[in-house]
Amino acid sequence: MTAAREGADGAVGSRSALATGTAYPSTEHGEVSLPSPVPERMRLLEVGPRDGLQNVDATIDTALKIDLINALLPLGFDRIEAVSFVHPHAVPLMADAEAVMAGIDRRLGPTRIVGLVPNDRGVRRALDAGVDELNFVLSATESQDRWNLNRSLAGSIVLLESALSMAVAAGVPMRVTISTAFGCPFEGYVPPERVLDLARRCAELGAAEICLGDTTGMANPRQVYSLFQRMAESVPRVRRAVHLHNTRGTGPANLLAAMQAGVDVFDASLGGLGGCPFAPGATGNVCTEDMVHMLHAMGVRTGVDLVALLDVARAFEGRLGVPLPGQLLRAGPILDGLTPRNDYDAR
Amino acid sequence: MTAAREGADGAVGSRSALATGTAYPSTEHGEVSLPSPVPERMRLLEVGPRDGLQNVDATIDTALKIDLINALLPLGFDRIEAVSFVHPHAVPLMADAEAVMAGIDRRLGPTRIVGLVPNDRGVRRALDAGVDELNFVLSATESQDRWNLNRSLAGSIVLLESALSMAVAAGVPMRVTISTAFGCPFEGYVPPERVLDLARRCAELGAAEICLGDTTGMANPRQVYSLFQRMAESVPRVRRAVHLHNTRGTGPANLLAAMQAGVDVFDASLGGLGGCPFAPGATGNVCTEDMVHMLHAMGVRTGVDLVALLDVARAFEGRLGVPLPGQLLRAGPILDGLTPRNDYDAR
Repeated sequence: MTAAREGADGAVGSRSALATGTAYPSTEHGEVSLPSPVPERMRLLEVGPRDGLQNVDATIDTALKIDLINALLPLGFDRIEAVSFVHPHAVPLMADAEAVMAGIDRRLGPTRIVGLVPNDRGVRRALDAGVDELNFVLSATESQDRWNLNRSLAGSIVLLESALSMAVAAGVPMRVTISTAFGCPFEGYVPPERVLDLARRCAELGAAEICLGDTTGMANPRQVYSLFQRMAESVPRVRRAVHLHNTRGTGPANLLAAMQAGVDVFDASLGGLGGCPFAPGATGNVCTEDMVHMLHAMGVRTGVDLVALLDVARAFEGRLGVPLPGQLLRAGPILDGLTPRNDYDAR
Repeated sequence: MTAAREGADGAVGSRSALATGTAYPSTEHGEVSLPSPVPERMRLLEVGPRDGLQNVDATIDTALKIDLINALLPLGFDRIEAVSFVHPHAVPLMADAEAVMAGIDRRLGPTRIVGLVPNDRGVRRALDAGVDELNFVLSATESQDRWNLNRSLAGSIVLLESALSMAVAAGVPMRVTISTAFGCPFEGYVPPERVLDLARRCAELGAAEICLGDTTGMANPRQVYSLFQRMAESVPRVRRAVHLHNTRGTGPANLLAAMQAGVDVFDASLGGLGGCPFAPGATGNVCTEDMVHMLHAMGVRTGVDLVALLDVARAFEGRLGVPLPGQLLRAGPILDGLTPRNDYDAR
């Protein structure tokens, strides 16, 4: 019965083209493409160890964080957001950033380590701790900035300006994440002009990459496509990234829309780790393995080893003792060996 | 604190443009569209009372089924799949089809009632019970047809031929659903040619609509877009519908891809009701209210009253005593009043 159930569900074990996304695409059947070309390769920023853990309702010790990051390092991620250098009073769970950085074994993989920074002091700590890149977060709306970061938007820009000049002087790339870029829980719909103005300002200040965040899962695919298309026009020559939450089930569709707008960098969280502290049971960040699985099935490469990733997610779920919302963890990837072909369109 | 949390989460109460999808779209900001136009109006077949309940691990009595259908009738659905006329030995839970049909109060709404039929006897029972439309299911693969329906694919075609001629004679539309059209848990990847041949045969036999089903959640967006594009070319003049499962988190992205291929009929299940009997914890059908919410946010009309729908889902979850996977049930729709505008592109 077990075998039949596994068969009926399409569960899978071993490595394959689907696991690595390398065997695609083939043109043998002359299939048509999606209406708009999508990137052949997506670059992933795994945010589970920082964004994910910060929003989970469980006790996480330093050793567990280090183990998680070290387990993720060999899997092929472009980057991992490992730590946050906010003030320990603001986020006590992240007070061990230096200890976590010291515990990471960089020989395990070439993945670049990202640290979140809120200000100059954070930048200095991050540089001292040896991060490869910095992530500065500000909100698209005044209300969210005050609520989440306890400062005005103008205040954030001043801090950004100073932090960014430090980063540029140190030769360390800084990404800027504009959170609540699609919708704000306090102000609702966010006018695209405001986001684009902010993005333009960040680019002028020297941001290496600008990420638009759907912090509470309010975006829809048409909006995502539209805003990124406009960003490509009005803020050219800056790398665009997308940070999506699946709070209302639209995360995967929003990722597809962002890809159709040419965005090839996205954030995701192992197991969908993170949740939303304001909606018990609601999922948070889009789930890394679910999205890697979807992309590989589409013939889009990520560089990530899906099977090894699932093993890490499963093991980590056990150690965390909290069920993670990731769906591949429950259903397993589609049948290995039986579905290596994806003869859908030429690229 | 409660208010702040509701604010931060974007929870919502009352009726609005988002609830009905009527206030969209506006062109005031001259936004660009998705790369391919999507239908302005999607027609929904709510499958919770039949497909959903049949796959849920709980005891459901006839009165509960009747209450659910009567609660759904005024909400604006195009169709509701209410009952199945398979042999009571095969699916004991559906043995009360006639009693359910007798309990439905048709004055509550103009929604058409669909009954699933496996053969001539089923068609006769369905017609006697007064359904408006019939749904005949067969598989795209031999293995799935044998496993799920205990018959060969050739046997299914013979049964379909006979059932369809009865339906045509009675003047009652019959939809044919081709399940495992994208992937089969036993055979893996399903060649598009096989599905298209089957669809062509169904169209020749007089099917009013042909639905492609991703029965175990194995499809990816590129595949969905491609297969429906090819279907439009090789089986013209038949209405296309899509039946998606969210087993691996790709359901919403697959719906978007189907829409970009011009499909304007889809199945969904209240609360994501259904699950997958072979993957505990995995979700089944795409969730009706989550998808209605996404579509309304995009400015796509469904005719469904989202707020009333959420009330029904919440009440029904309580009576069922099983948490439903729908995410809007946890997170609530995006802020009412603050997000009525969707000035993303003209249609």
